[in-house]
Amino acid sequence: MIDLLIEKIKQTSAPIVVGLDPMMKFIPGHIKKNAFAEFGETLTGAGEAIWQYNKAIIDHIYDLVPAVKPQAAMYEQFGLEGLKAFSKTAAYCKEKGLIVIGDVKRGDIGSTSEAYAIGHLGKVKVGNNYFYPFQEDFITVNPYLGSDGIKPFVAIAKEENKGLFILVKTSNPSSGEFQDKLVEERPLYELVAEKVVEWGIDHVGQYGYGYIGAVVGATYPEQGKRLREIMPKVFILVPGYGAQGGKASDLAHFFNPDGLGAIINSSRGIIAAYQEEKYAEFGEERFAEASRAAVIEMIEDIKTKIFSKSVKDTD
Amino acid sequence: MIDLLIEKIKQTSAPIVVGLDPMMKFIPGHIKKNAFAEFGETLTGAGEAIWQYNKAIIDHIYDLVPAVKPQAAMYEQFGLEGLKAFSKTAAYCKEKGLIVIGDVKRGDIGSTSEAYAIGHLGKVKVGNNYFYPFQEDFITVNPYLGSDGIKPFVAIAKEENKGLFILVKTSNPSSGEFQDKLVEERPLYELVAEKVVEWGIDHVGQYGYGYIGAVVGATYPEQGKRLREIMPKVFILVPGYGAQGGKASDLAHFFNPDGLGAIINSSRGIIAAYQEEKYAEFGEERFAEASRAAVIEMIEDIKTKIFSKSVKDTD
Repeated sequence: MIDLLIEKIKQTSAPIVVGLDPMMKFIPGHIKKNAFAEFGETLTGAGEAIWQYNKAIIDHIYDLVPAVKPQAAMYEQFGLEGLKAFSKTAAYCKEKGLIVIGDVKRGDIGSTSEAYAIGHLGKVKVGNNYFYPFQEDFITVNPYLGSDGIKPFVAIAKEENKGLFILVKTSNPSSGEFQDKLVEERPLYELVAEKVVEWGIDHVGQYGYGYIGAVVGATYPEQGKRLREIMPKVFILVPGYGAQGGKASDLAHFFNPDGLGAIINSSRGIIAAYQEEKYAEFGEERFAEASRAAVIEMIEDIKTKIFSKSVKDTD
Repeated sequence: MIDLLIEKIKQTSAPIVVGLDPMMKFIPGHIKKNAFAEFGETLTGAGEAIWQYNKAIIDHIYDLVPAVKPQAAMYEQFGLEGLKAFSKTAAYCKEKGLIVIGDVKRGDIGSTSEAYAIGHLGKVKVGNNYFYPFQEDFITVNPYLGSDGIKPFVAIAKEENKGLFILVKTSNPSSGEFQDKLVEERPLYELVAEKVVEWGIDHVGQYGYGYIGAVVGATYPEQGKRLREIMPKVFILVPGYGAQGGKASDLAHFFNPDGLGAIINSSRGIIAAYQEEKYAEFGEERFAEASRAAVIEMIEDIKTKIFSKSVKDTD
């Protein structure tokens, strides 16, 4: 799956993942109106609005980007109906040829991590039958519980030819509170990064990149540079571009000289583009076209500010 | 809700939570047979088997214990149908007067943590209506992302009069890999413990205990002793008793001299008691009676080994 991700990045020239984080305030009025007319102002109505909103965006961007990243929390907050929309969204994205990175940030002790891995990446046995419950291609995972909480995820990922992105240095303002603490004179996130390399050592694709990736926030470019060195062949999922303050020019060091090694996420900057002044001309009705325009601009932004730069700066 | 938990602990004399982690291999054959006869060997069949299994156990233990702790992963692995069983289980437990601790170990950046908190502890707005999606009373939370990932959980917990148990020192063998790392000569988990105290400072119940609790594994009694000192009025959820190797005699220091301050979890030791030699006499058909017997024995074990001891040992 990391090979497929790389092939799709090359094919689209877009090391970009669109975060499908459908908050109610992003969903255009007419979509909510239709969904509520059919199902009432209920959780079912909310699930339907989320699904219609996602579907329109996917239809307008699927040919431009390699991957999407639905954020589980934005669906889980609407209970079972929200998760139904999550599941439908993931299945539809795969139908459209997109790689699905489930941003679930799960993590637990051994047998429990295994159950999460089965649910999201693998297949579950019921009697004599097997089912693939949520069908993501990658998921994000939290490392706080250590190796025996991570290894079941790695095992299932390997079995299913799928992958992980393990939280190393997150994009949020207080990520340093624990992650930056010095352990033997080095920040904790560097130790986590070394473990990510170790965990992924037996699960490497044909381009030399591992199936076990890392999450490093765009908002910490210096740390990104250092982490790129520690994890030279670990693919990095980079959240925090755009709305969270990460600039394209900060992102050059997340990439290797081969132009690979990272995938930049943007969520509300794409899916709620129509709410920005810059794309106001599209209006609420044409929100999905605004999303397409925002993707095209992001690709350009990254091309000019990163790839013209990375050639010069990497040494 | 922490007050209610304390009242129920006093009333039952059982500082015990039963972990509802329904793995397929625990579910008796006749329950699976009936569920599959009705719904086939499908995810729906699995969900039904889980629900019938849980319901029977709940019916046999609800009067003995204050709380249950369904482990989300064990449901999520069966996809939407599994989560439907999770939701039904939580609702039924509340109907029976049990406090529900959702073992979900969620944790993310600000707005995303808020969405998880809304889904599990709070209410979500759809149009002009509000819904409580999963309706747990407490949930477990992962602290790796720091304060801005935790505060939205605290805010919703406060608003809804509910609570959290934040992972401090987990029960698994490799929990020390990051959690024990020395930061300024102290293990990281002590820093997390101090933050738990800080996060919970404004959300304290009438017995002096906070609504923001901690998770500390039974398998690390010495650390538990130290953490009890750092977090004197933080309620501690203690997993790892029984199957994971934690002994009752190790648990005395998790409690305060008032006999409160901790709640001990047992999962498979209770729900799969009928598979142990000790309770074999019940047979598979009477699995729920075996669970009841195991709860009664656990209460006795804790009473004799902890409470006779804690009076002597705490100073």
